[in-house]
Amino acid sequence: MTVYPVKGIRLASTAAGIRYTDREDLVVLECQPGSSCAAVFTRNKFSAAPVQLAKLHIAESQPRVFLINSGNANAGTGERGLQTALRCCELVAAAVDCKAMEVLPYSTGVIGEQLPLRSIEAAIPECVARLSDKAEAWQDAARAIMTTDTVPKLLSKKIDLAGLEISITGMAKGAGMIRPDMATMLAFIATDAVIEQPTLQLLLDEATDISFNRITVDGDTSTNDACTLLATGALDMVPIVPGSKGYIQFSAVLTSLMQELAQSIIRDAEGATKFITLNVAGGVSEADCLAVAYTVAESPLVKTALFASDPNWGRILAAVGRAPVESLDIGQVNIVLNGVSIVTAGESDHGYTESAGQKAVAESDITIDIQIGSSEESVTVWTSDLSHEYVRINAEYRT
Amino acid sequence: MTVYPVKGIRLASTAAGIRYTDREDLVVLECQPGSSCAAVFTRNKFSAAPVQLAKLHIAESQPRVFLINSGNANAGTGERGLQTALRCCELVAAAVDCKAMEVLPYSTGVIGEQLPLRSIEAAIPECVARLSDKAEAWQDAARAIMTTDTVPKLLSKKIDLAGLEISITGMAKGAGMIRPDMATMLAFIATDAVIEQPTLQLLLDEATDISFNRITVDGDTSTNDACTLLATGALDMVPIVPGSKGYIQFSAVLTSLMQELAQSIIRDAEGATKFITLNVAGGVSEADCLAVAYTVAESPLVKTALFASDPNWGRILAAVGRAPVESLDIGQVNIVLNGVSIVTAGESDHGYTESAGQKAVAESDITIDIQIGSSEESVTVWTSDLSHEYVRINAEYRT
Repeated sequence: MTVYPVKGIRLASTAAGIRYTDREDLVVLECQPGSSCAAVFTRNKFSAAPVQLAKLHIAESQPRVFLINSGNANAGTGERGLQTALRCCELVAAAVDCKAMEVLPYSTGVIGEQLPLRSIEAAIPECVARLSDKAEAWQDAARAIMTTDTVPKLLSKKIDLAGLEISITGMAKGAGMIRPDMATMLAFIATDAVIEQPTLQLLLDEATDISFNRITVDGDTSTNDACTLLATGALDMVPIVPGSKGYIQFSAVLTSLMQELAQSIIRDAEGATKFITLNVAGGVSEADCLAVAYTVAESPLVKTALFASDPNWGRILAAVGRAPVESLDIGQVNIVLNGVSIVTAGESDHGYTESAGQKAVAESDITIDIQIGSSEESVTVWTSDLSHEYVRINAEYRT
Repeated sequence: MTVYPVKGIRLASTAAGIRYTDREDLVVLECQPGSSCAAVFTRNKFSAAPVQLAKLHIAESQPRVFLINSGNANAGTGERGLQTALRCCELVAAAVDCKAMEVLPYSTGVIGEQLPLRSIEAAIPECVARLSDKAEAWQDAARAIMTTDTVPKLLSKKIDLAGLEISITGMAKGAGMIRPDMATMLAFIATDAVIEQPTLQLLLDEATDISFNRITVDGDTSTNDACTLLATGALDMVPIVPGSKGYIQFSAVLTSLMQELAQSIIRDAEGATKFITLNVAGGVSEADCLAVAYTVAESPLVKTALFASDPNWGRILAAVGRAPVESLDIGQVNIVLNGVSIVTAGESDHGYTESAGQKAVAESDITIDIQIGSSEESVTVWTSDLSHEYVRINAEYRT
């Protein structure tokens, strides 16, 4: 896959030895002066120190530099954790010559341990000195922000806007503690287009809602979720404004890039052997459709059955039946498992055969279509199965 | 443990070969004429055929006989499943000489397969012929209703009511698909006391709410949950009425018996290696306390950490922080893990050490006390950990 560097963005990664000894774990990302920055953060009430500080900084300044570390989430670390995050921002600001308030910190990794300030302090000058606008810098950064991820998640797209070529490049990390609420574990997306901050935030909010906010591995919303979108304005163009043709075109490509990044998190989910797409349609409201989708997506029994390639559709039916939806009329429920009808009008489909069901779930990509009524509402949620490997990874995570 | 047979109750079990070939899987339980019967059933909207029929029968008659099978849930089986359940009731009614409407059917096991009517039809006469009021009949029945349970769940208690000795004996089954909502998988409790139906229902509702409705293995509410309480009235006494001293005494013993049965389900939960008690107190409402308790209890990351005996308290904190509670003030949150303070006033406890944490979670019984405010509200929920064995059992369930 081709990675398009984004004009106006420079990055560098380094091995600070925060937790891992044999890999890079610290990233500095810098955008040129005048860039717009939009961000969404976790709704977990125990938000991590870097999330608290990043929210303050983005409210009070125009961010210039982004410091990201893996291996330690700096969450549940109290006042001292907040001081450490602030000190990191000050160190970066001194190295790149900006204000500490213009630095946004991001951390991901183990919760509840203090961030090793000295290691980060020692690594920052070298990292800043190596800032680069090359594609390789994006590739190294996407690898440095990984925790239990097994592959880096990096995507690039081009938009042809009336002859003008716009680049969008984004990276994400995440494999467990995934049920984003406003954003995913960590994602950084940048474009060279000219987009003012309010428009950029609108674009990000709309795209997040149907990408990172539509995936779940284990239902566990992280304390550190954050998704950041930068527009460097390096291109010579009129700003993209809401309602314009350019907005619609940019929004479509941004959304598709963010959906692909979100899906790559699910494909790399801890222990995952299946990629599951849940389409729920016809509910009284979008909220009802989502309630059914997430109840099925997070059912341990549905997930273990899919891991076993067992068409145990009774578990899907039981999950739909317990979803927190007031008005569910089971007589209107239809369920199709990878093209095979399993429930029609609330009853097991008469044409269903076990062999058809077995063939349907033998695939590694499985789509479950659930109709719960006749409205126009529809949602899509992506999830993974629950395997031995998920338990092993999460039982051994700190050892 | 001593099992006290209940005067006025007769039971028998037999091997009908419904799914298992080497064990008993069918139970007939009969109560003497004039007995009161109270029951609570699953709120899963896809309730099984026997649940639908049992609700009809209990509304229209005074139940006399209870037919229970394991190995097949008769759920998701549509109109044909309902016809089969009704036919089973008719067969039992003919064998014991009562009306079909006086028979309540119960099924547990695989969802989505038709009940093998012929096997049950062939087994009923012999089963009815062997009805017995002995303790052994209770023991055999408790074993015959098991599915993935590894031990039978049977308990007896005596109450001395002003010199009169009342017996209560109950059995339950369940190990997975456990997040009862009104009742658990299956439970049958009987007493020889004189209690009229409305009072019996009140006693059952109150006790269910703080016993079977306070456990979760995997968050998956079953299609077949049912809990039934019988009072045969075989003793010579004035009826127990609400508000009386006898009511309070009976209610206390019934509640404790039902809590012990509920806890025995958690101790035998699929793959469980830990028994976890969650106490949540101080919320604005009981609903808020329950929301926090269940979010922690059902977090795959908390459950895998406890399976690994890893005091990864950050995951508990992250689960509390994502609980659907509007007003959570994290500055008021205190968390104590088996006696070791891990979070105080929303921050990691200064006195906490990793070795104290490790010692705390090494135990097989773990209590997590979570305070979320200063109100008088408090709830207790029991759950299990998430192990390799849980995944194995549920991946291989139908093979």
